[in-house]
Amino acid sequence: MKAVILASGGLDSTVAAAVARRDGYRLYLLSVDYGQRHRRELECAAAVAKALGAEEHRIVTVDLRAIGGSALTDEIAVPKGRTEAQRAEGIPSTYVPARNAILLAMAVGYAERVQAHAVYIGANVVDYSGYPDCRPEFLRAMETVARLGTRAGIGGQSVEIKAPLLQLSKADIIALGARLGVPFELTHSCYDPTSGGEACGLCDSCLIRLEGFRDARRTDPIRYAAPLSTRS
Amino acid sequence: MKAVILASGGLDSTVAAAVARRDGYRLYLLSVDYGQRHRRELECAAAVAKALGAEEHRIVTVDLRAIGGSALTDEIAVPKGRTEAQRAEGIPSTYVPARNAILLAMAVGYAERVQAHAVYIGANVVDYSGYPDCRPEFLRAMETVARLGTRAGIGGQSVEIKAPLLQLSKADIIALGARLGVPFELTHSCYDPTSGGEACGLCDSCLIRLEGFRDARRTDPIRYAAPLSTRS
Repeated sequence: MKAVILASGGLDSTVAAAVARRDGYRLYLLSVDYGQRHRRELECAAAVAKALGAEEHRIVTVDLRAIGGSALTDEIAVPKGRTEAQRAEGIPSTYVPARNAILLAMAVGYAERVQAHAVYIGANVVDYSGYPDCRPEFLRAMETVARLGTRAGIGGQSVEIKAPLLQLSKADIIALGARLGVPFELTHSCYDPTSGGEACGLCDSCLIRLEGFRDARRTDPIRYAAPLSTRS
Repeated sequence: MKAVILASGGLDSTVAAAVARRDGYRLYLLSVDYGQRHRRELECAAAVAKALGAEEHRIVTVDLRAIGGSALTDEIAVPKGRTEAQRAEGIPSTYVPARNAILLAMAVGYAERVQAHAVYIGANVVDYSGYPDCRPEFLRAMETVARLGTRAGIGGQSVEIKAPLLQLSKADIIALGARLGVPFELTHSCYDPTSGGEACGLCDSCLIRLEGFRDARRTDPIRYAAPLSTRS
């Protein structure tokens, strides 16, 4: 059986891919280059695909800057050094309008093409509660779209959308990844890396990742630009 | 009130845009360049946007060739001169996996960005019964995705997905467009135009368009490469 994995090169999607492999699927990784400011994500995704023995790694390029509205695709400053309380307030500026709907629609298209039974996404409601498109009811609605909007709707292979990390804390995700042998050193989380590819250590994504490793009592193997003393 | 229109430069999406204008919406046209072999569609969409007085026309580029599987994005031959019975058989080779899910997800993202109340799509079940993603139940599922996967799901503006041509015959669409003053001469339907931009007159899309104009007792103002005598 085959599974398409939405692979950003990040920690969560890499753990999701490792879960799919554990579940017995052959892996078809799909990375979407949506005009990210940090191309390093795609290099990480390629390295992860190789390390996990994926059958295929495809990259779809889509220029979402044309519809705009996010710190990740526009020239809006990435917020730095926010506390957990600040991060929990409302939708973060890094929210891309309807991003997961767009990514999942492409993954479903790719799944239809390779006749995959499942699409895995590393979506998570605990750390990203501000994102409307990480909620379980949204993922179920996308599954209905996948059933009705593809050949599955007229007798073809149906696609299940799986979000195995949805209810896990970041520490739980890291612990799960460690059990499954995830190459954390190849993964990337920073919203605003240095030109040398080091994580900033101060954006929301870095802070959540570092807190996760701390809570899981593990050492994050990636390099950070900010000295540990400046971090909470 | 604002509406986003998925505008391909084709006949149906242009009539859908004219319906949105009649319904009192300000028009925000979105064209998706998904690696079509015929770039002329995008030029038509721009001309249509201008003719209809759209507030804005955005083009999102997405390279769906990476996930492949269609005569419109791959190097598969476009079928020519098929009868109505042949055209009705199964899913046509011009089907792009999950295309409408991908296009609508982007339109919903754009709608969220400009705070539009509606997304219009020129989908039609009569002439395109072979496409699973043109069916009413699929469009309702996408509306649920739009509600749950955007800020609407947490208190923001909700987006309605409107497919005003869904149950109309091609002749009805043309008659409706004529009443609304649609500039048919700017629209484009051919799957395989000549290098000079003339419609082939033989692909499924040209045949359906020509039959529609004939049934509506109107003359199609665009130019065709194939002489009329070779056409049914």
